[in-house]
Parts: sequence; structure tokens; C-alpha cells
Amino acid sequence: MAIKIVRAVTYDVRFPTSRSGAGSDAVNSDPDYSAAYVALETNHVDGLSGHGLTFTIGRGTEVCVAAIEALSHHVVGADVDELVADLGGLWRRLVADTQLRWLGPEKGVIHLATAAIVNAVWDLYAKLDRKPLWKLLADLSPEQLVACVDFRYIEDALTAGEALELLQRNQAGRAEREATLLRSGFPAYTTSAGWIGYGEETLAERARAALDDGFIHLKLKVGADLDSDLRRARIVREAIGPDNRLSLDANQAWGVDQAIASIHALAEVEPWWIEEPTNPDDIAGHLRIREAVAPIRVATGEHVQNRVMFKQFLQLGAIDVCQLDACRLGGVNEVLAVLLLAAKFGVPVCPHAGGVGLCEYVQHISMFDYIAVGASLDNRECEFVDHLHDHFVDPIRVFNGRYWPPTAAGYGIEIKPESLSEFTFPGGAAWSTESDTREEVRA
Amino acid sequence: MAIKIVRAVTYDVRFPTSRSGAGSDAVNSDPDYSAAYVALETNHVDGLSGHGLTFTIGRGTEVCVAAIEALSHHVVGADVDELVADLGGLWRRLVADTQLRWLGPEKGVIHLATAAIVNAVWDLYAKLDRKPLWKLLADLSPEQLVACVDFRYIEDALTAGEALELLQRNQAGRAEREATLLRSGFPAYTTSAGWIGYGEETLAERARAALDDGFIHLKLKVGADLDSDLRRARIVREAIGPDNRLSLDANQAWGVDQAIASIHALAEVEPWWIEEPTNPDDIAGHLRIREAVAPIRVATGEHVQNRVMFKQFLQLGAIDVCQLDACRLGGVNEVLAVLLLAAKFGVPVCPHAGGVGLCEYVQHISMFDYIAVGASLDNRECEFVDHLHDHFVDPIRVFNGRYWPPTAAGYGIEIKPESLSEFTFPGGAAWSTESDTREEVRA
Repeated sequence: MAIKIVRAVTYDVRFPTSRSGAGSDAVNSDPDYSAAYVALETNHVDGLSGHGLTFTIGRGTEVCVAAIEALSHHVVGADVDELVADLGGLWRRLVADTQLRWLGPEKGVIHLATAAIVNAVWDLYAKLDRKPLWKLLADLSPEQLVACVDFRYIEDALTAGEALELLQRNQAGRAEREATLLRSGFPAYTTSAGWIGYGEETLAERARAALDDGFIHLKLKVGADLDSDLRRARIVREAIGPDNRLSLDANQAWGVDQAIASIHALAEVEPWWIEEPTNPDDIAGHLRIREAVAPIRVATGEHVQNRVMFKQFLQLGAIDVCQLDACRLGGVNEVLAVLLLAAKFGVPVCPHAGGVGLCEYVQHISMFDYIAVGASLDNRECEFVDHLHDHFVDPIRVFNGRYWPPTAAGYGIEIKPESLSEFTFPGGAAWSTESDTREEVRA
Repeated sequence: MAIKIVRAVTYDVRFPTSRSGAGSDAVNSDPDYSAAYVALETNHVDGLSGHGLTFTIGRGTEVCVAAIEALSHHVVGADVDELVADLGGLWRRLVADTQLRWLGPEKGVIHLATAAIVNAVWDLYAKLDRKPLWKLLADLSPEQLVACVDFRYIEDALTAGEALELLQRNQAGRAEREATLLRSGFPAYTTSAGWIGYGEETLAERARAALDDGFIHLKLKVGADLDSDLRRARIVREAIGPDNRLSLDANQAWGVDQAIASIHALAEVEPWWIEEPTNPDDIAGHLRIREAVAPIRVATGEHVQNRVMFKQFLQLGAIDVCQLDACRLGGVNEVLAVLLLAAKFGVPVCPHAGGVGLCEYVQHISMFDYIAVGASLDNRECEFVDHLHDHFVDPIRVFNGRYWPPTAAGYGIEIKPESLSEFTFPGGAAWSTESDTREEVRA
């Protein structure tokens, strides 16, 4: 019997992370890490279902849930074999929906929702194939991979033919790189030591603890006032010594000229990269900043909305590090497009992670990129943030400063039923307590 | 007594325009012109309320409504005098909402919703001041106008000081230009003659009718197949003769190289401009196209998401015509930013209109731009589409090919109560009939 998707069940799940200082930065001062979550349930006898989420930070999760519901008619009722036989077609149908396209196109809420659905279908595919997503992708042929990518609007930078050639060139070393990965894991860097809400005493302590955990690259949030940024950066640099890497993340706090001035002032701590120095839409601005602050690397991506924007960042030479996001882009298909673009332009991909579920997602992307696309570990690192992993059925395994390849089938994003229930907003136990507290405060 | 906003009432209003061929183009084949609509009700004895909408094309309007509701806490409960005394502050609070910002930032659904709320507050302001919005804006001092603009992320192209200087320079001629406007109206061009769903026989007929109505500039939808585009363009060019203007609109149908080839092929009809030749995010692509097809002008804007994108289009010299949209941008405040940027770079603003309510909105923008910012009529024209105006309390007045200045107080976007009720989705009479019909078809 054909397996069909019989319904898309959505969840608004929010973790009250703003109650601690963790996760805070110059722009996002009180994030409640959240997920607009979807389970694509099938008629399979084993209760097979595909799970996907898009990451949000609190209010507005319900808007993404509404967008997932608006898009779900593209998959509900579909035959799963037919869907996975033409994932490129599914992606194009989603982004070309003749009425929903107006809400983007391919950006913001509607694209975040597209990612949740697309990733849930890939999860289903990987579960059916009994492989973790990274392995499923690594076992696809160059032709199959290229067929998943929408080259529309990027052909002036990368054609399907060039992409195919690139993947075919990397075929030879795939097995060897996969063996290396299984043996040695994938390099991680940590953001957990440097939140802007952490006091200065905490910073040195956490930095040293990160080194003890095997990390050699730490990231510090900046973009508050420059004196404070510099003071905090010196503390971390001193704690980790000159040989480890220290990156800085301004979370879009600066205008272009202000970014250049600030980075020059922070140069003494020898930043490995400066992340989100300004608005993520400002390609020309990033280029100016990059030219002004070299050799300090410029990184961005967690808010880069689609492959058309990444294409230009790469064409213009505006970034040194591509920090794509697993659900800011429209799911696995568009991630493939950006991995291929980055490989063509020789820019390393260090995916954005953290929040809730992003580490679970991007480990698969980095591992596949290493095996088949970027095909190198040079300056490739996957972000690690030590948050909320216990809520996942198959949480990440990070130790010795490395991500270790997941073995469970799927994209690894399935949240435990009891967590879904406890953190559902506003009805879950975690939130009814919160609202009680607030009422008490008012009374 | 202080006037307060006591509630934000939202509406999902959809007009079943897809039942005719009107409104169709290469990408949007079946638009149901719709509005995520908000009325900010006050405690004023006269029942004063501010109205705003964001334009959509059917499915997904409910997603924008959800976003308006998520943002409305920024205005509900506010003192109206305090709000209008610092509209720049209101705008920054809306776009910097520490949790909702993640959904953009400043793009897509959340920005469309921002526009609805911001425009509703401006409507309230203009009604309290008993002026149509264009006149309210024209009477504000340069200092007041500059205070409404968020220069964050655009200061590298335009500082507040430069903007002030530009507005002050134009102070002298304001009264004269206002008198000209009242006497002669503002030039319009029409899109109503050239929808892609219209048969070839209809095209010539409608083109001649447009000339009879006083238009000297018509726009034709292209981006289907090139032979058909060329055949249709020749029909229209022949119907209007060599001296009238014919613009072409591809609605993003082409990749960069394909756009260049297509425009070269269409050059024989001497297009005045080519609109949306490719993806609206592709600034570098528009630049390449512009360089390749000169002297044919390149126009875009209805999908340009914010001032940061327009800044780059202008900095890089990628467009000849700035077609800003009254609700794709985050409402009046951001429109002011883009008018100022365009004036600085010497690019004429010809706002996007059509759909439902966009003509009602943008007439105010063009008139104000002429009086105080661009300060010229050279190549400035406001789009006209002959759709759905009867549903507005104060519909546009377009005759002799010109928009005539509205006189009623406000931003002119208030929909008649009976239309709100009839076209509310899915409960309104217009849609219950539709759903009955569909059930009959299924049965």
C-alpha cells in the first residue's frame, strides 16, 4: 500500500529561556527559544511521521504556525514515494504557490514555514531509508543532489552543469572523508561561553571551562557599548591565550561606518571573525566592511534569507564565512544550493546553530558538506550552544570539542512528546505557571 | 481627555478577482486581491479610528492578520497625542520588537503587518489634523519629517543632516508645486490594459481606450514565452503609436541572463522601462541587466522589502525607476526614508499600485514627493489600475490620465463597512457563495 501523508499537526512550542541571561545578545535581549513545529503523520502501520521545525524566539511563533498551516496543503494527501522521488519539484511548488508567494517571495515568515515543511519531508525520507540525514545525502548521486536544487535566479553564478561537475569531482574522496568523520567527528566551536547577559567574572571562568571541554574556538557577543565590548573581549582573550580562536558576534548592532570603527577598536584581541557586523540585507555594506577590516574575517548568514542573497554575498566577495541557517533558508533543498555556491566561490560554511533544534539540524549539513561538497575541514566548524538538547529524541553528541555523527534515522529534530506537551504555548505547564506568576505580580 | 487607542480590530478581506483574467501576470496567475486590514479604534466621542491595510493576493492573508495582532500591543492602550508626537519612535519600537524582529528582520509578513499598523496610525494622525495625508506631510517641517525616519543602516548613504538639507532646499518651491498639483493633478500611467490573461484582440482595444481616457503611458505584462510577449507588445505599440510610452513588466519571470536576452528581443517595441526583470532580491543582477540593456530603463520595487535593499539598488546604480510600495515597506516612515534616498541619488519614484487599496495609498506618496522631496514631475508617474475602488469610503479620482488630489482627511484607505462584511474571508457573503459553488462542482 502506498504511504500517504494524512495530516500535518502543528505545535507552538516555547521554552522560557529569557528567564536566564543565556541566549542574550546586542539585539535579541530576551529570547524565549521557540519552535513552530510540524509533524507530518502518515498512514504507515508503524506510525511513521516526518518532523520539522522552524526556530523562533518567542512572540510570533503563532504567525509561523499559521504559515505552516497555509502551506501544508502541498503535502497533506501526498504519496510519500512520489514526494521523495521529486523533492526539487516539491520545493518549487512550495515557493511558487501562486498566492502565498506574495508574502515573501522566499523570505521571512513564509520561508521559515517552508523550511519546517521541507525539513519534515526530508526527515520522513531519511526515516524510510533508515539513515541519518547526513548519510542519506552522502549516499545520493551527484545527479540526484542536483535535481533537488532550484537553480532559478542563481544560474548566473552557478549552473546545474557546474554543480554536477563539482559533485562528481568530489566523488572519489567521499568514502575516505566519511571514514575520517566517523573516526574523528566534526569540529565544533562554542557560543555558550560569551552571552552578553553574562557578568565579566563569569566570562573568564566559562572561557576556561570551554577549553577544558576541548574547544579551541569561542565566540563572544559584542555590540553593546564599545568600552564594555573591549573589556569583555580582553578578558576572554586573556583566559584562552593567543593560540585559540576568539570570534566576535555583533548581531547586527552597527551601521556600516560604525562597524568599521568598532572592529578596528576590537582588532587588538585578534578576532578570528566578526559576525553580523551590520544589517543582514546589506551586501554592499558587508563588502565595504570586509575591505576595511581585513585580515579579520567577515561572517554572516543566520539572517540571510535565501540563495539569491547568498549568491550576491559570494559574487561580490562580501564574506569570508558562510553561516547558513537550516530553517532561515527554505530547508534542505536550498541549503544544498548554498553549499554548492559556497564551494564554487571557495568560502567555508560554518552553519549557524543554537536556539532550539538548530544544532540538531546543522550537524547533518556540516557532515554532508565535508563528505560531498566543500570536501574539506579547513576553517569549517559547526556552531555549538549548550541549550535544550534534552528535549530531543536524538540529541546531539558533542564532546572533545567535536560533533559526533548521529546514527538514528532522520533529520534528528523530533522533540519528545512530553516536552511538546509541557512547553506548548500558551497551554503547556511551563507557561501556565508563568502566567500565574505574572498575574501575581500585577495583583 | 486624552484620546487613546482602545483596540485593534483586524479583518481578513478577500475579493475573488481570480474569477476574471484581470490582475494576472507571469508569476501571479490567479490573484484574489486581499487585505489584512486593521482598524485602530479610539475612545474619541466621534468614533474616530485609524485604518490601515497590507495588500495580499489571497491565501496567507490570515498569516498577515496574525502578524498584525502580534504587533498590536505596541499601539493598543497608547495615548494618540504621544504616539503622533514621536512617530519615529513608534516605528523603531515596532521593527525592534525583541522577539518579533526574528521573523524578519524588516521583511516579509512581519514587515507587511508593520505597514498596516504604521499606516493606520498615520491615518489617525491625518484625521485628527483634518487633512489628507499628502497635505499633512507637505505641511510638516523638514525637522519633523526627518524625525520620522530611521536612518539606522542607511547612514552610509544618507545621513539625517543630508536629509534635512535636502528638505530645506525644497522649502522654497513647496507652495508653488502644491498649487500646480491642485490645478493639474498628478500624472498616472495605466496597467489595466495589459494583463497577461487578456486575449490578443482585447489588447489593442484596451490600449486605444486607455489613450481615449487620457493616458500616455501603458504597461504590458510579459514573461510568458518570448514569442507571445513580442507579438503582444507589437500589438500594443501599434495601437498606441510611437509617441506614447509603453512599459513592460516581467514580474520576476526571468533569471539574469534570460532577462538580458529577452529584453534585447523586446527592444524593437522601444520599452519605456522593463519592470521586475528578475528576482527582487538580486541587486547585483539588476545592475548587470541595467548595464546590458541601456538605454531601456530598469524598474523595480513592489517586492523590495526595506530601505536597506533600496539603499543598495541606489548606491550601486542598479535601477532607473524606484517603484516603492506603500505596504511592502514598513509604512509611511520607511516610505519617507526611501523617497529621501531616491531624491539624493536622482532616481524618480513611480510607486507600485493596483491590487486593492494601493492606488488609494500611493497617490498621497507621489503628491507629497512632488511637493517636498523629489520636487519634480520629470518621469514621475503613479501607477493606476482600475480595480475595486468602489469599496473605499474615499476612492481615488483619476481622469484625463491624472490622479486628482484627495481632499478627505486621512490616508484614504478606509473600506466601506458593507464591503468589509461582504468580503470577509471565509465568512462573508462573497465567499459563502463561492464555497457553495465549489461543493457543487465536487458533487
